[in-house]
Formats: sequence, structure tokens, C-alpha cells
Amino acid sequence: MTPSRSEVEREVLEELRPTREEVRLRDELFVKTKSVLEDVLKKRGLEGEVTLQGSARKGTWLRGSLELDVFVLFPPKDKEWIKEVAFPALLEAARALGEPEVRFAEHPYVRTVIKGVPVEIVPAFKVRSASEAITAVDRTPFHTEWFLQQVRALGDWIRDEVRLLKAFMKGIGVYGAEIAVQGFSGFLCEVLATYYKGFRGVIEAAAREWRPPTVLETSLPKEEALKRFEGPLVVPDPTDPKRNAAAAVSLNAYSTFIIASKLYSVKPSKKFFFPPKPAPARPVLPTYVVEVPALRAPPETVWGELRRVAKSLVKNLRSLGFEVTRFALWSDGSAAKIALEFLQDSLPEWEVAKGPPAWSPHALRFLRDKESWWVDEGRLFARRKRKYTEAKSAIADILKKLKAKSLILENSKIERVELAEERWLAEFVSGRPPWS
Amino acid sequence: MTPSRSEVEREVLEELRPTREEVRLRDELFVKTKSVLEDVLKKRGLEGEVTLQGSARKGTWLRGSLELDVFVLFPPKDKEWIKEVAFPALLEAARALGEPEVRFAEHPYVRTVIKGVPVEIVPAFKVRSASEAITAVDRTPFHTEWFLQQVRALGDWIRDEVRLLKAFMKGIGVYGAEIAVQGFSGFLCEVLATYYKGFRGVIEAAAREWRPPTVLETSLPKEEALKRFEGPLVVPDPTDPKRNAAAAVSLNAYSTFIIASKLYSVKPSKKFFFPPKPAPARPVLPTYVVEVPALRAPPETVWGELRRVAKSLVKNLRSLGFEVTRFALWSDGSAAKIALEFLQDSLPEWEVAKGPPAWSPHALRFLRDKESWWVDEGRLFARRKRKYTEAKSAIADILKKLKAKSLILENSKIERVELAEERWLAEFVSGRPPWS
Repeated sequence: MTPSRSEVEREVLEELRPTREEVRLRDELFVKTKSVLEDVLKKRGLEGEVTLQGSARKGTWLRGSLELDVFVLFPPKDKEWIKEVAFPALLEAARALGEPEVRFAEHPYVRTVIKGVPVEIVPAFKVRSASEAITAVDRTPFHTEWFLQQVRALGDWIRDEVRLLKAFMKGIGVYGAEIAVQGFSGFLCEVLATYYKGFRGVIEAAAREWRPPTVLETSLPKEEALKRFEGPLVVPDPTDPKRNAAAAVSLNAYSTFIIASKLYSVKPSKKFFFPPKPAPARPVLPTYVVEVPALRAPPETVWGELRRVAKSLVKNLRSLGFEVTRFALWSDGSAAKIALEFLQDSLPEWEVAKGPPAWSPHALRFLRDKESWWVDEGRLFARRKRKYTEAKSAIADILKKLKAKSLILENSKIERVELAEERWLAEFVSGRPPWS
Repeated sequence: MTPSRSEVEREVLEELRPTREEVRLRDELFVKTKSVLEDVLKKRGLEGEVTLQGSARKGTWLRGSLELDVFVLFPPKDKEWIKEVAFPALLEAARALGEPEVRFAEHPYVRTVIKGVPVEIVPAFKVRSASEAITAVDRTPFHTEWFLQQVRALGDWIRDEVRLLKAFMKGIGVYGAEIAVQGFSGFLCEVLATYYKGFRGVIEAAAREWRPPTVLETSLPKEEALKRFEGPLVVPDPTDPKRNAAAAVSLNAYSTFIIASKLYSVKPSKKFFFPPKPAPARPVLPTYVVEVPALRAPPETVWGELRRVAKSLVKNLRSLGFEVTRFALWSDGSAAKIALEFLQDSLPEWEVAKGPPAWSPHALRFLRDKESWWVDEGRLFARRKRKYTEAKSAIADILKKLKAKSLILENSKIERVELAEERWLAEFVSGRPPWS
């Protein structure tokens, strides 16, 4: 039943499997968290089941990335109740466990770190099926159950296959459904690995067969799935056919995975799983970094804005005649940066303005302030002084205009990159994926 | 009946009207040519009517541009007969008149210069109507007759209006149906001036109403004309509705006339009729001239090829990343030149290559030799070294490739223009029409 694995995959797996210590630590932390939570619930007279969910429960975490998702499953009520009754109880328990940090997704949850392991304590409702979920997290127990059933049906080896796939996605930079990545969630990796009977099955399908839209018949026939969902990858959630488990996957993440799969198929290498850290590099082409030093918004908002600002910046620069080859984004939650690469950061003094047709009522107005003009195939053209000849001043002025509509553009700084030292920037400047 | 004329137009007309001497010279030369021709025809036993046609007959030539079109009208036969019987007779007469030069249009004709005045002796058939023309020139007598009838109907003033229009067309560079100009023939100017009741009528219509397709209801209703003819300007020949008298008018000539009419409407000036000779000029933008020193083909062929080569050159340069703003052509019959203006004649070392989608079977082949590559919205892109960074070497190599298919590219020379002294080049380099 175990799929055949290449030398590379066997070696990689040795580094991916959790250590015995990690497994022991998971058990210990869950027992502790559970007992503290149960005490608080009892004290407050709340009915709630404390469960372990996610990769720690499914045994699919990657060595060194242990994280506990502790879900407290309450009898169905409404979201208001969570905020006012359930959440304060979980917060009290978290205080007893360590330094709690409050986070917000659809509703508030608590995160704490115990013995170096992040523990998230999440309130959810215990519903009868995933399709009856009141909040998004109510589906998680069904995902967990679904995967454990696959393990029972297929065997323990599928966990290793999931680990290989997750590590591959992580290595090539497309692991995670969050807006910073717009890639493949852990659950999606589990569904893919199961559907294609292992890591190599997924890689081979992506390398040879995938083209958008790619539809997996997990819980719906293809035609039905195509009617319901858009996007390059359609994977109806096996626990809830109303939902596309691959909804977060952007065209970029999708196609990066395909090209990486093609390259890996031709020449498997550990580089895909553990890409080398690039050495500090000097840009071949003029490269600029826009830095926004202080952010006042949650990460999902920051990343959303960052992407919007970057795209708008690139579009404006291109319309001014600057050939922007590529861009990259970075944020650590407290600051954000946009890197831009140009073919030329200095343009000639003149540009060509395209005017109306010679017979247009606006024709003479177009000519009025032009030093030089001519007629070409019915249309007027003119030479005019370019507004921006230097990329830096163009960036600065575009940012000023975008600022009014953006939270994140306060006090932005623009610098030409001489030597890229930070990892993300060195990777960008090196000009090709570190796994290629 | 005489249309009102502005100060400018009255002044210009003073310079356009033929002198009494020119009129006398016309009569003298025609009488002489006619008598020589009639002697030869008689001697050879040929029936043929010697007539004066064209602007010399119609009295619409511009002072200093007298030219005699002497047509010998034979009873209808075939084109072969012209070549073998009629033409040798005309050539014999021309030899008696001066140094004859043989030219070829649809069939051969003779050109000679007497007392500084070019005299063309053209064989034609005397047909019953223009639509029965056997050769193109058989229509000419009908054009002459048609215009003389207009003069009889409207009055002598229409000749002055035609002269103003022709001089305007000449001044702005769109006078002539030949391929070098692709503009307005003398006859078309006569039709326009008559249709719009004078020079100002044409100018005002072009400035305010003309947009392509412009259709004049000269000998056909508009719908009918639009079914039969294409092109920006449709003027059914008043003597033959099967023919568009404006067929030669290119979109460029058409729109140049419109924009010049708009400018003249706003601010009439003698400049439009007698544009100043531009002073030698240094180019603002990098400008190159391609020169073909020796030509071995008739002018119509040379101009046709010159235009084709220039367009192909511009297209190729643009696809290599060079922004060509405009071009101009020049030829004096023995050599030809193409001038090209660039925004930049030196491009950066790198360019961006657009590859196939990531899922294409050709994806890996695209990446193979690329130093740097990335994925953008599903597609692969790569940085690659530009083949040509200097305009001059790009021009040279494109010409080499075009040469195989061209008569005119032997021994071509490419030079960067430092100082433009020749009139056409100085005009090009000045960057706007001399009449604007």
C-alpha cells in the first residue's frame, strides 16, 4: 500500500517526522490544557467538550512545527454568546496556563505559548455536520475526523505522504491559506495526498495534468463543482460539498506549484523541501524597496492592503513608462515592505503622447502645448516632456496619491537596493526561486 | 458668385496666377508640338487628334509649374497597337522637338523639355465616354471637358479657387496621387473646389465635417458609393461613377489635410501655401538615416518598396523594444533615404521574455536557458539578455534580413544625424509640420 518513495523523499521524511519528544510534549501539553480548561468550565457551570484538533491531533505536523489547536466544543448557540460567555472562560484558563494573547478571526480566540509550543484555544460549536457550521471553525472537528478515517482506511503511511506534500508546499512558498500566501492549507494538503494516493501522485498530476480550472471529484461530480466554484483549483470539501477547500489558492500559488512539480518530476531534490538561504546579493537590475515602518492593523488587513498598494503602484509605474519586471511583498506584522524591480530606473526626457484622431473636435486642443507633433494613420501624436524620468520620484508621488485611500502608507521610505541581505529580499534579488 | 476671400488668400492668389508670359508660352509650345505631331501622323498615315489636356488646357496650373500634357487621341484599338504603332510616331515627333525621355505608366509615353517647360506627349484612345476607357489616360479628355464645363457654368473665378486648393495641398505636402505622396490629384482638387463652391468651402468642410469615410455625392448616392468604394475619402468620378477619384488618398494624407484645414480655419496664414524652408537643425531625439545610394527601378516601384521597407523596419525595431516615434521617406529617383526618430537609441542590457503558462508542456523548455524567471498570474516570465542594445546595429541586421526580398537595399548606409541640412530632413528633425 505504501507508495514507492525516492531516495530524496526517504531522506526528507527522516527530517520531517516528529521526534518522540515532540509526541510526548504534545500529549503532556494537551492533558494540562484540557484539565485547566475543564476546571474553569465546571466552575462557571458551562457545558463544553475540550478536544485536540488540527495537525497535532492528526499526527501530520512537521518536525519543529508543533502547534496545539485546542477546541472547546459548546452546544450550538450564537456568535454573541461566544464573545460574552465562552471566550471569557477560555481567557481565564489561558491566564492560568501562561501569557495569553487575544486574537481575532471570525470571533476572538486565545493563543499562548507553553514550553515553546504555541497553543491556541478556540471556542466552537458542536454541530451535527460540517454543512451546519455556525462559525467557520465548527468545521474543523469534521476535517479532523475525516482525515483520521482516511488513516484508518489507508494506513499510517498517508501521514508521511501528507508531511512530504506540506513540506514541499512550504519549501516552494505556497503553504498556507492566509492572505500573505494565498496558497494551500494543511487540510487541502491532506485531501490532495489522500485523493492522489500519496505525495508523488499529487506531484505527477500537477506536473502532467493540471491546468485551470483543475477540479477534483472529492464530494461532487465535476460539472456540479464547476457550476458552484470559481478559481484555478476546485476541491469540494469532503465534509461539506458547499465549500471549495481550495478557495484560497491564487493563480500564482497554483501555477507555482505546477512549475515546481514539473521541475521536481524531472529532477527531484531536497532543495524543494528545504530551499537554501540565499546569500546576500547585489541586484542585477535596478531594485527599490518601499518600507512602511509602523502598522496599525491586524495581519490579514495589512497583507490585503499591501497587495492592493503594490499592484496599484506597479500599474501606475507601468502607465508612466517604467517597465516593472516583478515585485515582492514582506511583512512581519509590525512593518511591511514592497520590493520592485525595473528594467530601467531612469527614462528618457521625452515620451510620445497619443492624441485624438485628426478629425476629432479635440484635435486642436491636443496640439496646443506640444513642441512637436505628427499624424500617423489618422491619429495625432506628439512628443512631450516626461513627468517622471526617475523611478524613485515616480514611486514617491504615486504613493502620495494612494495614501489617501490606505491605512498603511504613513511615513513610507523608498530606497534603492545596493545589497540585499534580508532573506526575502536576497531571494527576490537573486531572480529565481531558491528551489529551482 | 465669387466666394469671399481673406486677405491671405488674395495675397496668395497674386503669386499663384500664371503670368501673361506663361500663358503665351503655353500657346506657343502647344502650336509647335501640335504641328510637329500632325506632320508625323500624316507622314505615317495615322489618324490622330492632337489635343492639349491637363492643367495647361484647363488654365489651373500654378505660376512656375507650367507643364504641357499633349494627348494624341487615336480611334480605339488595343494596347499592343499603342506600343507598336502609335508610340513610335510620338517618339519621332518628340525627337524633332527636343531631347525625348521615354517613360512608362500603363503604356509608354514621351517626355521632353522645351524652353524649360516639360511637355509630355501621351497616346490615348478617343472613346465615347469615360467609363469606356481602354487605358487609364483615355479618361483625361473627359476630365478636361468636365472641368471646362464647370468654368462655363460657374465662372472664371473657380480657376482661382482650384489654384488656392492645389497650392494649399502642395504646401502641406499632400498634393499628388503618385505613390510618393498618396495624396490629392489635380483633378480631385478641381472636383473638390467645384463641389464645395470654392477653396474655403473645402477647408471648412474638412475642418468641421470630414471624418472617415467621407463621401461626396458627385455622381452616385452616398449608400451606393459606400458599397462600391473603400478608403477614407470617396469621391465618385463625375465622368465615371465606377471610379473613385480619391482612391489614391491615404489615411495619412486625408488626416493631414483635415488637421491643416482646422489650423488654417483658426489662423489663416501664407505658411500653409508657402511653407518656410526649415533652417538646418540638430535633432532633439536620436535620429538615424538609412541611405540606399543606387536604385535600379522606376520611381513608382522605388517609392512603393521604400514605404514597405520603412514600415517593416519600424515594425521590427518596435518588436525589439526600440520606441520609434516617426519616420520619413525621401527619394530623388536615383537614391532613397529613410529617416527614423527614436525615443532612445540605446536600450538596457536586459529585457523581459514572456513565456508559456506554467501548465504548458513547453514550460520547462522556456526556463532552460534563463538566468532569472518568475511566475505571474499563471504565466512564466524571464529576464534575458537583449539581442540589440544599440539602434544602429538593430537597423543594420534588420536591413540584412529584409534585403533578400528587396530591390533597393543594396549597399545601404546607416548614419546618426548630427545636423540635418537637407530640406526634407531638416523638416523631419524640426519635429512639426513647417506650416503649423
